Amino acid sequence: MKFIEYSELGDPAEVLHVKEVPPVALKSGEVRVKVLAAPIHPSNLLQIAGRYGTTPDLPSTPGSEGIGQVEEVATDVSQLQLGQHVMLAGGGTWCDEMVGPAASFIPLPAGGDVEQLSMLTVNPLTAHLILESFVDLQPGDWIVQSAANSAVGEFIVQLAAQRGIKTINIVRRESLVADLKSLGADVVLVEQDGMVEEAKAATDGAPIKMAIDCVAGETFSAMVEMLAHGGTVVSYGALSMQPPTLNSIAVIFNDVRVRGFWLSKWFETASDADKQAAFGQIIPLVASGAIKAKIDARFELKDIKAAVTRAAEPGRSGKVLLVPNGG
Amino acid sequence: MKFIEYSELGDPAEVLHVKEVPPVALKSGEVRVKVLAAPIHPSNLLQIAGRYGTTPDLPSTPGSEGIGQVEEVATDVSQLQLGQHVMLAGGGTWCDEMVGPAASFIPLPAGGDVEQLSMLTVNPLTAHLILESFVDLQPGDWIVQSAANSAVGEFIVQLAAQRGIKTINIVRRESLVADLKSLGADVVLVEQDGMVEEAKAATDGAPIKMAIDCVAGETFSAMVEMLAHGGTVVSYGALSMQPPTLNSIAVIFNDVRVRGFWLSKWFETASDADKQAAFGQIIPLVASGAIKAKIDARFELKDIKAAVTRAAEPGRSGKVLLVPNGG
Repeated sequence: MKFIEYSELGDPAEVLHVKEVPPVALKSGEVRVKVLAAPIHPSNLLQIAGRYGTTPDLPSTPGSEGIGQVEEVATDVSQLQLGQHVMLAGGGTWCDEMVGPAASFIPLPAGGDVEQLSMLTVNPLTAHLILESFVDLQPGDWIVQSAANSAVGEFIVQLAAQRGIKTINIVRRESLVADLKSLGADVVLVEQDGMVEEAKAATDGAPIKMAIDCVAGETFSAMVEMLAHGGTVVSYGALSMQPPTLNSIAVIFNDVRVRGFWLSKWFETASDADKQAAFGQIIPLVASGAIKAKIDARFELKDIKAAVTRAAEPGRSGKVLLVPNGG
Repeated sequence: MKFIEYSELGDPAEVLHVKEVPPVALKSGEVRVKVLAAPIHPSNLLQIAGRYGTTPDLPSTPGSEGIGQVEEVATDVSQLQLGQHVMLAGGGTWCDEMVGPAASFIPLPAGGDVEQLSMLTVNPLTAHLILESFVDLQPGDWIVQSAANSAVGEFIVQLAAQRGIKTINIVRRESLVADLKSLGADVVLVEQDGMVEEAKAATDGAPIKMAIDCVAGETFSAMVEMLAHGGTVVSYGALSMQPPTLNSIAVIFNDVRVRGFWLSKWFETASDADKQAAFGQIIPLVASGAIKAKIDARFELKDIKAAVTRAAEPGRSGKVLLVPNGG
């Protein structure tokens, strides 16, 4: 059994290594799952570098999600069948096989897009929860988001379009506009001075009810200015590494509200019913291809350094996947 | 009938003047009310200077609240009696008498402290609504507030103490500590480096659930650091005139929430039932002297320039009242 491990925090391309141990025998209630695909997320790289909200106990195996196929079940396991596709949750997915209690692997529908289903938990779920949890958005309502070409950003565009919610999307480069429009973006603005007025003009006077930001800094501040009275800005990242300046006038007189979203905390605190409801909405959309992420490249475990280097490259378009048993 | 008026925005000591017009006869359903006392609030001075959320139509008479005594009623008015004390709402209270529909004057309990009841609407109501509207505070819960020696700050201390809510109070000068403790403050901190750690230590590990800020700038940012996971900071002013820097880490990973409070908007949007409930809680407390504001000085209308100059002086302790018919 092969897996990726790091024993110290640092540059992922330096601290990550492939380790190998003999396969373990199954205990009562356990299954063995062959890992088919597991994505490399920015949050994985931040955590390995020690720049995330939580620090793992070391040594640690990265990976927040993935898809696997059941290849062995203990004699007392009846809820999973050989060959079945399952969701990998709970961390440590950058490996070629996982062994654990059958109940810890969630069955996925047969016939779905395996690579897309490997990226179910982090980005589509974040996009879904941000759209659902803070503002009661109705068809025809306007929202604005930054870094709209990020993986979460593209899922927000797709989910919003499906629900009739209109999106203003802020990006850094003109070359990203056409792609976002093809996904269903209503308006795409290239970040620049005058963007606040452009955004307000784009809705033809309709209020912008929510701003979704993962850039922070001046981008956050500009989005606060775009919001209608009582609007909410939801922060889920700080790509610019700059703290935003908060406009007290907007908060007090325009009743602008600030909230944060962190998926890890949602997993800790959401009820089982909430989780089932959220996955119940997302899984069919991803399995059917109704919403999807771009994929940039695929790497085997032995090429982990090349994989994380590629995943950290600016300008890359799409996710980098680990395919530990060949793509 | 005498009243204060301004025809242009600017320094209150320059633009305010006393005007006099002949008394008007009452129409059907109207009453004439002698103004006993009306406070000068910082928000009045900001509005006259053109530095508030709304700009009045000019010329305008300032004054957001006060207390009056009914001195004449139209023959068809039955709900108000001669001599009765009433609350003055709806603006334009810096005058010696008001004439209007009987329904626009809310009866106050007899025998209450007239000067305290003249300051019912703005500060005690703000303190009450901030404590009630954002976080479900229970006895024993901790909150922190800045500018704790402001009028709203002192009402927050008194209301919180009555409800068993524990307060950490931030002030600028050591000389303010004893007064706040005598009002029921649990902890008073003089603003300085290390204040965040002091505040956290003061609660002996208990979470700080809400921060109430009217200073903005670095004070706001420090209070965000003090908050427990899921805590809310409520902004209702920006005395420092500095925008706060928002810590994205706190918003995303610590789920800190930012809200604003503006009393004018509450008056516009609250239901009659909400208003009755809020006044129903505040009026008995003020009338009985259970909560009170300090009074610094009293001025007649003819001394309006001296009055607003005194009201704008830093280091003043307590409200400046206009007493248009003598104190």
